[in-house]
Order: sequence, then C-alpha cells, then structure tokens
Amino acid sequence: MAVPPSTYPRRLLPLFLGLFQGALLLFFALFVTYDEPSAQVEDPNLVANQVYSTFPFFQDIQVMLVVGLGLLLTFLPHYGFSALTHNFLLLNFSMQWALVLQGLLHHFHHGQIHLDLHKLLISVFAAVTVLISVGAILGRASPCQLLVMATCEIPVYLASEWVIVTCLGVLDVGGTITIHVFSCYFGLGVSKALFRATQQPLHPKETPTPRSDLMSLVGTLILWVFWPSFVAVLCQPGDAQHRAILNTLLAMSASAITTVVASSLLERDGKLSPSHLQNGSLAGGVAIGVVADMAMPPVAALALGSLSAVVCVLGFRFLTPLLGRKLTLHDQCGIHNLHGLPGILGAAASVVAVLVASKDTSGSHPSQLSPVGGNATEAVEGQWGGRQALCQAAGLAVAVGASLLAGLLTGAALRLPCLARPPERLCFDDSLYFKIQDQAESPGPDSSAEEGALALKEQL
Amino acid sequence: MAVPPSTYPRRLLPLFLGLFQGALLLFFALFVTYDEPSAQVEDPNLVANQVYSTFPFFQDIQVMLVVGLGLLLTFLPHYGFSALTHNFLLLNFSMQWALVLQGLLHHFHHGQIHLDLHKLLISVFAAVTVLISVGAILGRASPCQLLVMATCEIPVYLASEWVIVTCLGVLDVGGTITIHVFSCYFGLGVSKALFRATQQPLHPKETPTPRSDLMSLVGTLILWVFWPSFVAVLCQPGDAQHRAILNTLLAMSASAITTVVASSLLERDGKLSPSHLQNGSLAGGVAIGVVADMAMPPVAALALGSLSAVVCVLGFRFLTPLLGRKLTLHDQCGIHNLHGLPGILGAAASVVAVLVASKDTSGSHPSQLSPVGGNATEAVEGQWGGRQALCQAAGLAVAVGASLLAGLLTGAALRLPCLARPPERLCFDDSLYFKIQDQAESPGPDSSAEEGALALKEQL
Amino acid sequence: MAVPPSTYPRRLLPLFLGLFQGALLLFFALFVTYDEPSAQVEDPNLVANQVYSTFPFFQDIQVMLVVGLGLLLTFLPHYGFSALTHNFLLLNFSMQWALVLQGLLHHFHHGQIHLDLHKLLISVFAAVTVLISVGAILGRASPCQLLVMATCEIPVYLASEWVIVTCLGVLDVGGTITIHVFSCYFGLGVSKALFRATQQPLHPKETPTPRSDLMSLVGTLILWVFWPSFVAVLCQPGDAQHRAILNTLLAMSASAITTVVASSLLERDGKLSPSHLQNGSLAGGVAIGVVADMAMPPVAALALGSLSAVVCVLGFRFLTPLLGRKLTLHDQCGIHNLHGLPGILGAAASVVAVLVASKDTSGSHPSQLSPVGGNATEAVEGQWGGRQALCQAAGLAVAVGASLLAGLLTGAALRLPCLARPPERLCFDDSLYFKIQDQAESPGPDSSAEEGALALKEQL
Repeated sequence: MAVPPSTYPRRLLPLFLGLFQGALLLFFALFVTYDEPSAQVEDPNLVANQVYSTFPFFQDIQVMLVVGLGLLLTFLPHYGFSALTHNFLLLNFSMQWALVLQGLLHHFHHGQIHLDLHKLLISVFAAVTVLISVGAILGRASPCQLLVMATCEIPVYLASEWVIVTCLGVLDVGGTITIHVFSCYFGLGVSKALFRATQQPLHPKETPTPRSDLMSLVGTLILWVFWPSFVAVLCQPGDAQHRAILNTLLAMSASAITTVVASSLLERDGKLSPSHLQNGSLAGGVAIGVVADMAMPPVAALALGSLSAVVCVLGFRFLTPLLGRKLTLHDQCGIHNLHGLPGILGAAASVVAVLVASKDTSGSHPSQLSPVGGNATEAVEGQWGGRQALCQAAGLAVAVGASLLAGLLTGAALRLPCLARPPERLCFDDSLYFKIQDQAESPGPDSSAEEGALALKEQL
Repeated sequence: MAVPPSTYPRRLLPLFLGLFQGALLLFFALFVTYDEPSAQVEDPNLVANQVYSTFPFFQDIQVMLVVGLGLLLTFLPHYGFSALTHNFLLLNFSMQWALVLQGLLHHFHHGQIHLDLHKLLISVFAAVTVLISVGAILGRASPCQLLVMATCEIPVYLASEWVIVTCLGVLDVGGTITIHVFSCYFGLGVSKALFRATQQPLHPKETPTPRSDLMSLVGTLILWVFWPSFVAVLCQPGDAQHRAILNTLLAMSASAITTVVASSLLERDGKLSPSHLQNGSLAGGVAIGVVADMAMPPVAALALGSLSAVVCVLGFRFLTPLLGRKLTLHDQCGIHNLHGLPGILGAAASVVAVLVASKDTSGSHPSQLSPVGGNATEAVEGQWGGRQALCQAAGLAVAVGASLLAGLLTGAALRLPCLARPPERLCFDDSLYFKIQDQAESPGPDSSAEEGALALKEQL
Repeated sequence: MAVPPSTYPRRLLPLFLGLFQGALLLFFALFVTYDEPSAQVEDPNLVANQVYSTFPFFQDIQVMLVVGLGLLLTFLPHYGFSALTHNFLLLNFSMQWALVLQGLLHHFHHGQIHLDLHKLLISVFAAVTVLISVGAILGRASPCQLLVMATCEIPVYLASEWVIVTCLGVLDVGGTITIHVFSCYFGLGVSKALFRATQQPLHPKETPTPRSDLMSLVGTLILWVFWPSFVAVLCQPGDAQHRAILNTLLAMSASAITTVVASSLLERDGKLSPSHLQNGSLAGGVAIGVVADMAMPPVAALALGSLSAVVCVLGFRFLTPLLGRKLTLHDQCGIHNLHGLPGILGAAASVVAVLVASKDTSGSHPSQLSPVGGNATEAVEGQWGGRQALCQAAGLAVAVGASLLAGLLTGAALRLPCLARPPERLCFDDSLYFKIQDQAESPGPDSSAEEGALALKEQL
C-alpha cells in the first residue's frame, strides 16, 4: 500500500496548495466583496456591537483550534511539529475551501458574495470537521493525503449540514450532530478504506513520553476552557446564549470529575491513564452541544456531562481495542470515543429533551426550544415535540450514514500512489517533512539511507 | 506518618469523587434551576449585555486558573502531569462544592436555587483558595488528601468571606484579604499540622530543570497577563472597573521590574533566581486587589507593586528558610511569599487609603470608595474613614486567624492513614498516580519493586 | 569588543532598573492622575462600553507580546528562559518609559497627565518596537545593552511616529510603517554598529532542537490567532474595524498556506523549514496593517498575504545569507524577513490602494480611507489620492531613514565596555544570567571556570 520511497513525490504538496491558492485569488477577485453592514443597519453603533459580541467568541474558537487542538495532537513524541503544522495548514485550507463552496452555494446574490465575520465563522466550523477526522489517521498519512481528504470532506459536510439543519430542522446549536458525529464517522470511514484489513502494528515512536503527554494535556485544558464559546457563539443573544454557556460549563465540569472516577476504576492498578484525561474531560462539551440552549434543568447538563465521560473512558478501555481486533479499524487519537460516542449520546439526549419539553406545554415556552421559530408556535405543542424528536433522530442517521459512506469513498481515493502515504518505518516522524534533527534518538542507519534516497529522487 | 505501601488505598479516590458527583446530581435535581434573567429585566438586550460584560472576564479567569496556575506548578520536573491534573480536578471539585454550599446558604428562595453566570463566578473564586493552599504541600500529598482539604476549606472560606465582607463591610474587590491571605495561612496551617516537627529533606526530584522552569515561567506570564480580569470582574462597571484595570496593570508592571532588581541584588553572584521571577512578578497583583477600585493616585499602585515584589523576593531569600529552620514549617511553592506577605501589605495599604480618602472630604467622593454605598454617605466622612480602617484591619485579623485555625485542624485530619499520604521515596513523581513511563530517569530497582507491591495490593 | 569576564558588571542591571523605577515613582507622584472619563462623558454606560470595547483587544495584545512573542523567541534551546524574561522585562520597561515620554510630550494639560487605558495601549505599542528590534541581536547582547537600546529607541520611535502620522498624515492603522518597518531597521542598525565587520560564527548553542522549535511554533500560533486584535484595536468602531479584522484574517490565512508552498519549493529536498513556518505565517499580518481598514476588495488582502509570505521565505533563503556575507550584517531572528520586507510591501500596497481609491470617486467614499477625515472631503478626490500616496511613500522613507540612523548611533553606544556584552563563549546560554543548571549539557571545564571567575569578581 505504502508508496515506495524512490517515487516519493515531494513536489505534489506545493503544487496542489499553490494551484488552490491561485484559484482562490481568482475566485475572490471575481466574486467576493465585503458586506457593508452599515448599509443595511442604519445605526453604526449596532455594527460595532455586532463586532464586539461575535469577535471575542471567534478569537476563543481560533485559540481552541490552532493552539488547543494542535497541542492535544502533540502526544506523539516525535510528531509534534507535524501535528501542529498539519493541523494549522488544514484549518486554513479547509476554511478557505468552505468559504468558496459556501459562497457558491448560499450567498450568490447579484453576482457578488458578501463576506462578513459570521460567514468566516461558519467556514471555520466547517474546517473543524476536517481537524477532527484527521485524528483517526494521524501520523500515518502524508500532508497530501490530508489535503485531499479535506477537499472531499468539506463539500460533503456542507451538504449534510444543509440537509440536517435546513431541511430536517434539527436543533443543534453546538454542532454535536452536524460537526462531531459527522467528522468522527467520516474519519473512521477514511481510516477503514485507507488501511483496509491490515492490522496497524504498534510503532515504536507511537508511545507518548511524559513530556509529550504533558503538552497534550495543556492542549486539552485550553480546549476545556474555551469550549463554552464554541457552543454558544451561534446562539440567540440573551437568555439562550446565557443558558448555553452555563450548560456547557456544568457539563464539562462534571466530565472532568467523572473521567477521573471512571479511569481510576477501570485501570487495574488504579492509576489514571493520560489519554483518558486528555479526552474524557472534553466529552461533556461534545455531548452538550445539541441541547445546550434548550430549556432543560441544570441537572440534565451535569448528568449528560458525567455520562459522556463514562462512555468516552469505556470506549478507550474496551471499544477501541475491540474495533481494532474485530473490524481492523484503526483510530489513532480515539476520535470515536471523544466525538462519536458522546455525540450519539447528545443526540439521544436531544430527543428526550424535545419530548419532555413538548409535554409540559403549560409552563414552558416551546419557542425557546426552536430557533426555527414561527412554525413551532403554530403547531400543536404535542405534535411539534414528536415530530421534532423524529427529526433529531433522522438528523443523527443522516450524519452517520453520509459521513461513513463519504469517508469510505474518500479513504479509497487516498490510496492513490501519487498521494505518497509514508512507509510504516517513517511514520510518526517529523523529520520526514521538516528540517528538524531529532537529536534525542538517532533513527538508525537504514532509515536514514532510505531518507537519503527520498531526498535524491524527490523531483516529482 | 506516611502510609505503608501495602495498604495504599487506590480505590478511595474514585469512591470519594463518585459519591460526591452522585450527591451533586441529586442536589441539582432537587433544588437548582436556571435564573431567567429576562424574567426580571424586561429588556433582552440588557441580558445580552450582561453576558458580554461578564463572560470575557470569566474566560480570562478560567485560563488563569486552569492553564496559567497549572503550568506555574509544573516547576517540579517529574510531577508536571500530577500538578496540572490535580489543579484541574480541585478547581472543578471545589467549584461544584462551593456551588452547593452557596446555594444552601445564600440563595434559597422559594425552595429553588437560581443559577447564573455570576454565581458560577463566585464559586470559582471560592475554588481559587483551594488551588493556592495546595501550594504549601504540593508533591507530598495524595489526591485524596487534597480533596479532603478542599472539602474542609470551602465552607470555612465561605463563612470567613461572609464575616469579612458582609458583617464587617471590608472593601476587598480583588480578594486580597478574603482569598489570598486566607488561603495562604490555611495552607500553612495544613502543612504545619500534616508534617509537624519533621524537617522535610530535599528530595532528589524536587530540583527544577531548565525545561520545567521554562514551563513554569510561561504559567507565570499567563497569570500576569490576565490578572487584571481577576481583580476587576466584580467591580462596578464604569469608572471603578476602569480604575481597577489600570491600577492592576501599573502594579504588576512595577512588580515585574522590581523583582529583577531585588533578585539581582540579593543573590551573591547577581544571577536571577527563576523562583523569584515566577512569583515576584505576580506579587503586585495580589497586593493591589484590596485597593484596586479605590480613588487613589496612580503612583500608589506603582509603589504598592514595587513594594510587594521586594517583600516577596525577601521572603523567598530569608523568611522561608528561617520558617523552615525555626518552625519546621514547610512551604513547597512559597505561597507565604506570593500570597501571604503581599496580601498583608495590601491590607495595610487599604487602611492607609481609607484614612487618606476620608481626610480630603472636600474634593473626593467617598462613595467611590465604598461599594456598600448608602451608609457611607450618611455617616460623617471622618468617622467613616476611621471606622472603615478599623474594619479593614479586623478583616485581615479574621482572615489570618480563621484560616490558621481551620488549616491546623484540617492538616490534623489529613494525617488519617486511610488518606494515603505517599511515602517520601515516591513523592514528586507522576508515575505514582498516572500510567506514565519516566524514560528519562529509571527510578531504580527498589522503588519499582515497591510500586509493584502497591499495584498488587491496591484493592482497598 | 566583548568585555573581559573579570570586570563583568553584574550590579549595573539592578542599579539601572532601580534608579529608573525610582524616577518613575517620582514622576507619577508629581504629574500623573487618572482620567475620570465620566467627568467628560455624562453617561456612565458609555464609560463601561469603552472599557468593554477596548479591554478584550488589549488583553489579546498582551497575550501576543508576553506569551506569543516570548515563546517564538525560545527557539534557541539553551536561551529560552532568557528570551522569555528579557522580552517580558523589556516590555514593562519600555511601556513605562513610553508612558513617561508621552506624558511629557503630548498630554501635559493643566500640569497633570491624565492616564487611561488608551494611553497605556499606545505605550504598549511603543514597547513593541523594542521587542522586535531585539530580534536582530538576540542571544549576543547583555540585559544592560538591551535596556539601553530600549531607552534610546522609545523616544526616536515617538518622534518618528509623530512625524509620520501627525505631520505627514500617513494612514497606518496597524503600525506596519510606524512599528514594523521602523523597529526592523532600527534593530539592523544596532546590529551593524554593535558587531561591525566581524562575521558572527555559528555558535554551537544556536541550533534549535526539535523541542525548542516546537515551543517557538506554539508562540507563532498564538501570535497568528491574536494578530487581528493588534491591527484592529485602534480602528474606528463599526465598519472600519470590522473590515480591518476580516482583512487581517484573510491575509494571515493566505500567508499560512503560501508559506508552506514557498518553503517546500525552495528547499532542495522539499522539506519545510521550521523558521520559515514560524515567521512566514505571520508576514501577512505585518503587511496588511497599513491597509487593513481601507475600502479595498477582499482579494487584495489575500494577495498581499500571499505575496508577503513569499517575500519573507525568499528573504530567509537568499537575502539573509547574502546580507551576512556582503554587509556582515547579523540578523539573529530574521527580523528583516518578517518585519522589514513585508512592511515595505505593505507600504507599497497602501500607495496603490490610495491611488486606486481616489480614481473611482463616484462609487467609493474617500472618507472611509482617511481617518484624518475633514481635509480629505474638502480636497478634490484626485488630488487627495496623489498627495496621500506621496505621504505614504514619504512616511516609509522617514521610518527607514530615522530608524537606521538612530539604530547605528545606538549600536555604537552599546559598545561601551561597561554594558558588558557577554563573551562569545557564554552567548546563547541561560546560565550566565539565571540560577539554572543546564543538566542536559555540561558546559565543559574551562567555561565553568570562567563563570566562576565572573561570580567571584562581580562586585561592580
């Protein structure tokens, strides 16, 4: 499967990216202009307020993705520089690609696409799916493979998000279904089709060191702190946003404590596993997204946070090894445990929340539940609840189905030899892609010879 | 004192945390609901503005506590993962525990506790006391001991804060007296009662490495940057908040420079000590809290910042070794130098500030000094100043007395064998609590045998 | 040139800083008071809004300078602690020094200087120039030399900024010309005059390790995320600020991708160079500052970001070695590639933008281009454009000329033996300034003997 070193095509990456950047410039030159918000909104103070209300959230999310998620991926001790750089590169590439596609799909008015901070934010959300999916194949895929994966994933995500949110009217303010579940199964599909039935052996450079585990934990903590911004940024300002922030804070706090409990109980000697802590503490944030702005009691957020942490830790302990053995499914970062299982749990919780809310119609305001608004108030409350619950379930099914299918197809495409999957021996190693001398560990004579061969013959 | 390894109770931690989390769920299910701010405040824009004005400060404070303080504690080279994780765990545990106690104490209206961002923030402030106190015994206490300490400290803090702020009317917007002084002497009390008269020998894993010192300094810098948010978040919006931000910025800037001066003068060869820099740069932030929103000239903030840095560095150089020798008082992180001495200095400054402000009654507005408000304007200015100065001093006395007493009692309780204080040989080592292989340093045959014994017999 | 170790004056640093801090206290005591914004602005809500609209930007910028830039400089593996600390010290010193000078120059009304957050921000901007200039001589200069450099640079910067912005009316909201170009050529001038014609040999401690490169990249990413705040903080609230944020985001995103393309194409084996990534990704942010709030199409921001990344990478690959060989110009961090070349590119772009905007007078509003406002609308549009374009070019010339001249003079002053330039053997080493044991690498018998001599004879 792996491409022989002699044909390792080092010129493909700049070629691909260069052409993309050129096309983007052309597209922007022809079609994109700035939205002038003050043209529509008369009051200039309103524009300023819009900037002040969105921009801090936007910055928080950027910190999460660029610094937090990047550091979380540095748990591979010899692959930290690659993990940070590829994460950063994919964020920018996917965001720009989503901007183009979204412009073409949704915002084509009068021949011009109007760009504003909100549309950039939506594109960043699309890019998140790529950053998550990468976790399944981290360290064993070349940058070219990752870029092709991003190229395929973004349009599928946009289509699936359109079906789920616009057609089905699924309520999912924090992207639990549309982002987390989708990207998880897309990534697993890619991994399955890319590695097929070959069991991936444990690579000697795969084991975290104390130092790389520490950096990774710092990444987790940065994600943990800013997660409420991710969930609440698209909420209605006011009560709904306030509720979303509180629910997320409660869920993540419960996750943090429950992770320690679960990890300590599951490991034979009672010692905590770093990977449990790095992932379980965030599981509550994944699960809460879909119900964060709904009018539910605070205890529900706590319970959901606890439960998702348990599910995540159980997944790491039992399900990942099982899937590896039975389905030869490789999941490097355990994205199924952090994004898949808690995402499904969150979707199930949203079904319950919708049904419960529609029952006590006397006290509650169903409009708080439904950003879609108008049609909910018209409908009879009970009917609305049942229909909406069905929609939530259908949305989950669409996300899982579409992403798995598209992921499998994408993974098959990634097997093209020209995409230069690195040979197993050179996996998990920064020095394949970067001018970095790994002083701590000399890679041995044969691998350096192989690298020399790569270096000699890299002229595409 | 240290528990023998054969009975090391590894199941106590999940048991304790699990029961707590269950009780919390029950408590929330029965009593806690969300505050609907828009029910009281008619204008939904106002709710949004409240969120936008508090939430960025809240996020800054979370970054400080989770990332900044966590990294600051990683100066112990083999204990970084534990320091980060225990800090994170204690923040969440203490915050939830404070939420429960505060709910019971203050917010029991109509059988329901109304939760909002402000109450979460107050609970986070309560948790800060625990995170500071831990510094006195960092590395030599088990997680169970730390959790028991948190369980004891939070209610004492809430009671002491109620006496100091509500009963005595002490002005302390940045928590200098209520948080920093209190938590320092609580921690020292715990340390004294826990270690008693045994001099703690220098542990071979206690010495920072260049790398761990660097990470710790990054933590300091993160704390330094966001400290103004910590001091100003509870101020009156407008002038008072603006003044609090400026005063904190000035004090911390003066601290940074004065620390370099003091450290360079005190060390014989003129080289700077990393621990001085890591702590002294923050001393100004501790001291300024109690006077940050008062109407005093900017030079006072600069002077207070400089003075507190000098006091902090002097404390590290002379007082800590002296207390260790004379009182066999062990203070691992030097919390007395960072929180105790500058806190007392700040309290003294507040006495002066109140007296000065009350003298020039013609020009100044005493109401700017007193958030308590009404009763101050009624009183004759001179009388108000003298009485308020007495209150500030009394508040300091209450904080020191209550925390020392409660700390000593708590420390005695931590000596219970079931809380599993780690044996000296295994102190300062991540591998006692986490599945981490310390590759850099092989721990030697005997300690690994001892750990093996622990692992075998850990079934509570 | 380097001072002999026997006279190494370790008491000069605390003496200099201590005297400065004392003088600052005196100055503040005599002249500085707080601006009471509510005295002028009637509505207290307005004051609060001003705090909320500026403070988050201010915090972002502080994170950039203290944490982001600090970490970026830690690429020298044995000099990380020094880089972080000196950066932090210089920020505080320069900010306070700029506060004093600005107070004297601009804000002397009625014998009192009124301090507010905006003036602090302006002083922080002045300090940025010092932090950038340091990059040219990082690792080879003593802290005393750096402080003297800051002392000289700040007044020259304030004068040059006054000429450029106030006299010439140059539009430069993000400080591309006034800050980046100025500080780059100032630093190069200092480097030239300090090191003269001596070629700096490659020091064994100069080569980054994988770990130090990783930390440095984290610094880059932090800078990358918060850069829009730096560019947009001084914009007019509303449309202009919104546009500045979007332009900066687009430019930096294009930079990130183009850097990968350029670095990959330029290196023979197609591997990416860490220093290209660490710097090129930020080049777009440097270049966009001068045009960020102008009414130009989004494609211009993308193109400028791409182009500046190309220029930056080309500079690293070809220009820096060339300047080193031909002019014996030493540029440790490559500030000419990150700040000089992209800054000049940005200035050129601003000339084009002004000319283009003035041509289509029918559709566009020239007042959007000119924060200076009034005089633009009076003038005939075409005339305004031509004159403004000349001003932009003149501003660039002033920045380059003034900074080079002042830098050369400052560099000559830094050769004073009393400023204690470290001997080459002890360069790039934390242990010269900090009580840090470098365990990883024993420095060899002779250098430790030399250090011992330093320690013995350090009494000024």
